[in-house]
Amino acid sequence: MAKISIKPENKSFEYVPGKNLLKLLLENEVFVDNPCNGKGSCGKCKIRLLEGNLPDMVETEAKLLKKEEINSGIRLSCLVVPQGDIVIEILQKEGKHKILTTGYVPDFEFNPLIHKKIFKIEKPTLENQSSFEEAICNTFDVEKFDWRLLQQREFMIGEVTGVFNGRELIGIEAGDTTDLLYGVAVDIGTTTVVTSLIDMNTGKELATASMINAQKNFGLDVLTRITYEVEHPEDSKEKLQYAIVNSINEMIGDICNKSKVDRRNIYEISIAANCTMMHFLLGIDATSIGKSPYAPIFVKSKNILAKDIGLEAAPGARLYCLPSVSAYIGADIVAGAYVCQLHKAKENVLFIDIGTNGEIVLSNHGKLLSCSCAAGPALEGMNISSGMRAAEGAIEDVKITESGIEVKVIGEQEPIGVCGSGILAVVKELIGVGLVKKDGAFIKKEKLEESDYRYNMLQLDGKKREFVLSSNPKKLLITQSDVRQVQLAKGAILSGFYALLKKANINMSELDKVVIAGQFGAHLPADSLVGIGILPEEVRDKLVYVGNSSKTGAYMALMSADVKEQIEKLAHQIDYMELGASEGYERLFMECLMFPS
Amino acid sequence: MAKISIKPENKSFEYVPGKNLLKLLLENEVFVDNPCNGKGSCGKCKIRLLEGNLPDMVETEAKLLKKEEINSGIRLSCLVVPQGDIVIEILQKEGKHKILTTGYVPDFEFNPLIHKKIFKIEKPTLENQSSFEEAICNTFDVEKFDWRLLQQREFMIGEVTGVFNGRELIGIEAGDTTDLLYGVAVDIGTTTVVTSLIDMNTGKELATASMINAQKNFGLDVLTRITYEVEHPEDSKEKLQYAIVNSINEMIGDICNKSKVDRRNIYEISIAANCTMMHFLLGIDATSIGKSPYAPIFVKSKNILAKDIGLEAAPGARLYCLPSVSAYIGADIVAGAYVCQLHKAKENVLFIDIGTNGEIVLSNHGKLLSCSCAAGPALEGMNISSGMRAAEGAIEDVKITESGIEVKVIGEQEPIGVCGSGILAVVKELIGVGLVKKDGAFIKKEKLEESDYRYNMLQLDGKKREFVLSSNPKKLLITQSDVRQVQLAKGAILSGFYALLKKANINMSELDKVVIAGQFGAHLPADSLVGIGILPEEVRDKLVYVGNSSKTGAYMALMSADVKEQIEKLAHQIDYMELGASEGYERLFMECLMFPS
Repeated sequence: MAKISIKPENKSFEYVPGKNLLKLLLENEVFVDNPCNGKGSCGKCKIRLLEGNLPDMVETEAKLLKKEEINSGIRLSCLVVPQGDIVIEILQKEGKHKILTTGYVPDFEFNPLIHKKIFKIEKPTLENQSSFEEAICNTFDVEKFDWRLLQQREFMIGEVTGVFNGRELIGIEAGDTTDLLYGVAVDIGTTTVVTSLIDMNTGKELATASMINAQKNFGLDVLTRITYEVEHPEDSKEKLQYAIVNSINEMIGDICNKSKVDRRNIYEISIAANCTMMHFLLGIDATSIGKSPYAPIFVKSKNILAKDIGLEAAPGARLYCLPSVSAYIGADIVAGAYVCQLHKAKENVLFIDIGTNGEIVLSNHGKLLSCSCAAGPALEGMNISSGMRAAEGAIEDVKITESGIEVKVIGEQEPIGVCGSGILAVVKELIGVGLVKKDGAFIKKEKLEESDYRYNMLQLDGKKREFVLSSNPKKLLITQSDVRQVQLAKGAILSGFYALLKKANINMSELDKVVIAGQFGAHLPADSLVGIGILPEEVRDKLVYVGNSSKTGAYMALMSADVKEQIEKLAHQIDYMELGASEGYERLFMECLMFPS
Repeated sequence: MAKISIKPENKSFEYVPGKNLLKLLLENEVFVDNPCNGKGSCGKCKIRLLEGNLPDMVETEAKLLKKEEINSGIRLSCLVVPQGDIVIEILQKEGKHKILTTGYVPDFEFNPLIHKKIFKIEKPTLENQSSFEEAICNTFDVEKFDWRLLQQREFMIGEVTGVFNGRELIGIEAGDTTDLLYGVAVDIGTTTVVTSLIDMNTGKELATASMINAQKNFGLDVLTRITYEVEHPEDSKEKLQYAIVNSINEMIGDICNKSKVDRRNIYEISIAANCTMMHFLLGIDATSIGKSPYAPIFVKSKNILAKDIGLEAAPGARLYCLPSVSAYIGADIVAGAYVCQLHKAKENVLFIDIGTNGEIVLSNHGKLLSCSCAAGPALEGMNISSGMRAAEGAIEDVKITESGIEVKVIGEQEPIGVCGSGILAVVKELIGVGLVKKDGAFIKKEKLEESDYRYNMLQLDGKKREFVLSSNPKKLLITQSDVRQVQLAKGAILSGFYALLKKANINMSELDKVVIAGQFGAHLPADSLVGIGILPEEVRDKLVYVGNSSKTGAYMALMSADVKEQIEKLAHQIDYMELGASEGYERLFMECLMFPS
């Protein structure tokens, strides 16, 4: 065991060497900003070494730090693996309102719509036989309440705690329970669902959980699931809804267990998701999203009873669904645009959420224009022959050199599959070493000398060419079809990128910043994004990572009534451009399919 | 077959002689006012004989008509049984707004809160991808709507009909469905439940149904049911609620069948009931009603989703519960007070609803004071040894003379039991012929000569004396305990009557009118009410019958948003006097137990 001490706080903890410093700090509840999720790309997780030694800098680290910083002992905690006792200084102070464990959160004031108040209800008398309902309404400043609250209780007397959603009473509890008030922030992605338990008295994230969206059984992307809905009108809405509601309920159980919180003290569940996921969540027909002119049933925010869709929390708990803009610019993107304050940007900022659907929002000094591109699930490791989600055993990075194939595996164990960032890395490398041509086709094996280091990396399955990524313990292949999946995703996103700039009449040099959002995007280094041409070479130095801004938006809405209001306004400020309907788009898409040479 | 023709309308129908004229007219959809439900007490069901013959007048009929009326051929249709072809004139015109088949309804304008509007929803385009929700909100003048409406439909285009509850959208139907809009008015009594199907476009009552409140299995009166609730905390609320909801659902099925109406076109169910029944209906704890200080959980009106308590109608149908005043002055009484416009009375009016609970409201030139008395179910034929509800085979009237016992049976068949009005009649007769003494005890059989016509009417069961009301086909007895039940009911109501007058400082001669409300009350002739001393002799000529004013109030609220508003105001204007807490009440009650001599 070795020891890490933190000055001037005089906090210290022991550790087993082997992990990087950022992980050790976060595990021991020392907050360090890390928008890129510790991927060594954002350069934010700075600490200063005061005593002891750290291993030498790698090139990436040196590039991200200024000379003065290096000279004064500053290091990037995600890129160093300490081996012995050290004393360090944390350079950012923990922002009062910056309490999510990952991702970027702007400063904001806490004033949750959900709150508690204590009151005393007088005992009725023969002279004053006032009903319980009147006693409540006279005691609290109640604008309205669901009559079903009256079903929960006998006549209560004395100290009671009222739970409010604004001026609406949503819960009555005996005694003083003001210290027990929890909320849940959820991001429902087409592929992955992430859930956070929040202490609404402090804004602290107590625990998180994530899982693959159980709707994957009905299709891997939005359109396939809508097709499923159309083809099974008898019960598809119920099945799709049950799949997601049940998953969220399970995760709530999980995070409550981890934090020893009673789920009956959860009074709000705040959810961001794309428009189709939101329809499925509420059991609302999404078929009109699947066909031109792509008009959804609803886009507005919803503040409804959580139990009305089967979510298990306090009986009166609310479900807040963030607003969407249109069928293909969902609440996840509105949340991200809000988290990044795109509407207040004083420059030209392009926001990209890379997921099964890729959405792009361009802020032209605050004027917002968006588009959406069907990237498919390949970038998240789905629909890929050896694909898997980013979990232990997944290859997340790949280097191909003359000395062979080097893979980095999550959890540092033997590889059992390839996750999204791994797919991107391997395709980038395949292009780099010339195994995949600009048009996406593998080169012919017979064109390689047998002595070429790349010769044994290719194999043939009948006429199909495949790249052998790993053989031990399990053969992991990258097939021609896998490369095509990535290529289609890349073409979709890059063409959206160009189309949006063109529509806004902004050229590449006028673009000040490119924000990469999404939990998945946070795992994609600039090298991969630019290397396979998802983004053009010119933006390499303009990339900023904000992590899962969809969940962050849901969190902020949970913790602030003002944020709810502002997000609802923001949804109306985002214009939407239907790519398919824009002139010359087909040709642009074809051009964008080309990999960089 | 004979024929009845009506002039000047030139309507006619054939009939089989044997029924009274009122019944024949109502069965053939000819409206005749009959507040006393055809009991020959109100004198309202006048017709004029133009051609043909009718049997001679009985004394009751002659008493209720003026000499001029008799001379001009006027008869009371409930008291004549025509035998041949006749031509008559109906004297009251059918009031435009007086459409319930029984009971008194004051004039009022129809403007139901629930209404329909037709609109056109434009097809979305790629340029205008507005959501269905936006299309609705832009098309209709919608203030709010339950998001669950969005679950019902795919994206609808073209002509749609919106169903509104005020400015709240509660239903969306394809095409023009404005001609299909129905409502249900319900009176839930502790003993009997009555349901009416109303065409909300015309205000017409299409069908009615009634049944014994299925909660009778949990107790015959309010307090016994509350005791059941207290003793079975695990599921009593659910069972009590299910019993009544299920009954109403069955009756709705029944009245819809009769009228060939689809229950999915029912958009409001308007319910009046006493406060305890209302708690049970909504599944709300009623235990605080059962113990001092008798403060209920709620008294205010409710306008909620009918399906939230399991009522089966249109998916968005509303349930309107009329407001109560207190635990023992329920919405049924508020409804009655409204129907009788007690708050606008320019005289002293006493309103009595005789039922399992007896409620009295005194209007002192519009100033309202109320009290409640636990009469018990005896007056409704329950908890009586040979008791039954007022159905075919029930003895509804009794005369005891020297020539024997004469009974009148509903449906003119052999008697199988005694209903409430029959119980009252027999007790009145027993007092009249001296078989029951002022203190309520049967006289001793040995005090009668064997030659006395009354001798064989009494029998002994051990030491218990019993009156043999009928022996064929079934022995029907009136026991000492039966007489005591009636006596307790009488004592409860009469003492409330006196206590209220005393509190308001009004003496008997200042009382201008006594209104008898309740479906059951309509069956109690003045002779019985005064004869056994439920009401004092002095009010005999001041009685007015209004029928089931609870159901009428529910009907009026259904048909008018203004009535809803006025009834809610009225509930606040009724003061309540707790009899048990009023000085000298116990003594007054004891005095009131005495039968008239």
